[in-house]
Amino acid sequence: MSALVLDAGTSRRELAGVIAPGDDAHALAAYARSIWAVLVEPGDRVAGELVRALGPVAALRVALTDSRDPGHVSEAGLTADEIGAGRRRWQPRLGAVASTLANARRAGVRLVIPEDREWPARVDDLGPFAPLCLWVRGEVGLLAAPRPAVAIVGARAASGYGEHVAAELAAEAGAAGIAVYSGAAYGIDAAAHRAALSAVGPTIAVMAGGVERAYPSGNRDLIDRIARAGAVVAEVPCGTAPTKHRFLARNRLIAALSDGTVVVEAGWRSGSLNTAHHAQAIGRPVGVVPGPITSASSRGCHRLLREGDAVCITGIDDMRDLVGASVGGALDAGATDAYTGERTRVLDALSLRSPRSTEDIAQRAGFSLDEAAALLGLLELEGRAERRERGWVGVGGMARPAMLW
Amino acid sequence: MSALVLDAGTSRRELAGVIAPGDDAHALAAYARSIWAVLVEPGDRVAGELVRALGPVAALRVALTDSRDPGHVSEAGLTADEIGAGRRRWQPRLGAVASTLANARRAGVRLVIPEDREWPARVDDLGPFAPLCLWVRGEVGLLAAPRPAVAIVGARAASGYGEHVAAELAAEAGAAGIAVYSGAAYGIDAAAHRAALSAVGPTIAVMAGGVERAYPSGNRDLIDRIARAGAVVAEVPCGTAPTKHRFLARNRLIAALSDGTVVVEAGWRSGSLNTAHHAQAIGRPVGVVPGPITSASSRGCHRLLREGDAVCITGIDDMRDLVGASVGGALDAGATDAYTGERTRVLDALSLRSPRSTEDIAQRAGFSLDEAAALLGLLELEGRAERRERGWVGVGGMARPAMLW
Repeated sequence: MSALVLDAGTSRRELAGVIAPGDDAHALAAYARSIWAVLVEPGDRVAGELVRALGPVAALRVALTDSRDPGHVSEAGLTADEIGAGRRRWQPRLGAVASTLANARRAGVRLVIPEDREWPARVDDLGPFAPLCLWVRGEVGLLAAPRPAVAIVGARAASGYGEHVAAELAAEAGAAGIAVYSGAAYGIDAAAHRAALSAVGPTIAVMAGGVERAYPSGNRDLIDRIARAGAVVAEVPCGTAPTKHRFLARNRLIAALSDGTVVVEAGWRSGSLNTAHHAQAIGRPVGVVPGPITSASSRGCHRLLREGDAVCITGIDDMRDLVGASVGGALDAGATDAYTGERTRVLDALSLRSPRSTEDIAQRAGFSLDEAAALLGLLELEGRAERRERGWVGVGGMARPAMLW
Repeated sequence: MSALVLDAGTSRRELAGVIAPGDDAHALAAYARSIWAVLVEPGDRVAGELVRALGPVAALRVALTDSRDPGHVSEAGLTADEIGAGRRRWQPRLGAVASTLANARRAGVRLVIPEDREWPARVDDLGPFAPLCLWVRGEVGLLAAPRPAVAIVGARAASGYGEHVAAELAAEAGAAGIAVYSGAAYGIDAAAHRAALSAVGPTIAVMAGGVERAYPSGNRDLIDRIARAGAVVAEVPCGTAPTKHRFLARNRLIAALSDGTVVVEAGWRSGSLNTAHHAQAIGRPVGVVPGPITSASSRGCHRLLREGDAVCITGIDDMRDLVGASVGGALDAGATDAYTGERTRVLDALSLRSPRSTEDIAQRAGFSLDEAAALLGLLELEGRAERRERGWVGVGGMARPAMLW
């Protein structure tokens, strides 16, 4: 059916410089996945199930056999019709494999596959819709780095308010060591990437087309800067043009690559709402920056607040809560206020429910008894810790204004 | 213990012109409650329990006996200590009764008690913290009118944005026949009252001091206009100065008099948050108008959105949903667009779950078959109705932007 040779030697040769060094099996898997990336549109469930069930190499062999071959149907839980239809849409694209890989080699693009330690495990939550591989320009190690990651997305037609807020949040995230993911579009996306770069924070642009092309072209300089200081990522291979479908598919990737998605500004039908819904679909938290109800650029945000399960984001603390970045953890990258950090360590050692002794808290937070007692006193004054009969507890939520009844 | 005479003749004489005509029992109850209003601070739980258990007259007799008398303790579920302490705080105020009632007569203030049909049953949800009576300047009938009511409250130090939004919401509420309750303060409150008046909608100012005095005095003209076109209400009797405690107590009344509370703008520690918490405490919905996160005047609103159980309000439709005013119902007071009303009738006849035939919908909505079919077609185009195999269903919530998976 095909002239494609699936062996380790061919794999290494075709992917020279594109993959990390590894054994034969790794080279073969990478080669098979790179071919899969050419054959499918993002989010091809049948391809995803087949690769999950058989592994990329065996799955590719199934994909490339006669379209009526009924084998391997049961393993993947797919019907013969589904595999047959898959073969009919995959096989016509085989001819593009060679030029695609040549493009990647030329553009210095790295291929990352689930078998690599640089693979971002977060995307596996997409199940059969997970990308089969990722193409990366820039710092490959960023994707799987053990740091919190937030997606900051929003309208292309952003207001000055929206761009200001996106920049503030991204700069503070960057300063706190939280990776900022976005889509390199005009408006909110660009403001977020730029501010993250300025704050020397990690930032990753997730593209709808091949990573070697700048889209939109007006953001070429920005995208090149992101590739130098951070990473530009796509699941579609080099040479792929962005399409409507690929933008929507890209949105699920932005959602899946981050711990939470923050929509800064969005019109009533903004694509950012799509990203937010994808995040919610895989159980990731969604945050929303409110704005004036008189502003069309905030209508989509308010819509999410009203009708979705989104959290109101008013600053970096809310965003940290969203992505589950404990203040202590996020501060690792550059704690500025030792005093704040100390209190945070004590807060982290408190339970909201079970009272804990000062000794217990001192031990958990790594302080002497005297230090812990002093910090607990401070937190009590601030209304963040409470002294109970059997020890200390943390105070969650808002300290309510006086209520008489 | 006291020279106070509790009989029907005295009651009628003291309350001439202040209460609605009624029988002896009504006059006595009104007199007893008017005295209670002088004796207690708002929200006196012990007084509330006593009056609920024994009725106002018998409860007052208990209040005025010797402070060590142990009688009637069990009926009200109160301890002898509680009643004793109550007597000690109530009896010293007896001397003010005569002048207070003279003030009310002079100012043309009406006393409304739970025994009157003008009594707003909503406040009874406050249980033992319900007001013992209400003093009203203006249209007494407004309080118990069978129309939806919304409290629109917010910061005194409002921004131009906040005042604009408060005015828009109040004007639209007024035009839709929804009563607008607020506190007659500067800023959001005043903007809401003014706009409701301009829309010739019912508006009620709930005061922390006596209704005969204007507080703040800068809003005297506005408060007088509210008294002429709507109503000015307080639970404290004439001659009472507003105090911090009475403002907080007043907030619970605003919450209890309305079907839902909307906070338009509020600083981090705004009194409006207190009103919102009272509303939530008695199970009434709270709405919040978002604003720019860069605005201090919206910080309290965002706080409620994040940490409370508040709903995001972006316009009159959201506010209607909040107070449970069906569009059809609220439009009774002055439907402006027959076309909109027709579609609404069809929407009301649709179920979100069970498909219904065009015949069924026509009958429920009161249209001919042809009219119903045409309106269903329109609603289908708008994405608000959906044709299923077994009939039509309504489409609830937001029409989500395309999701591929």
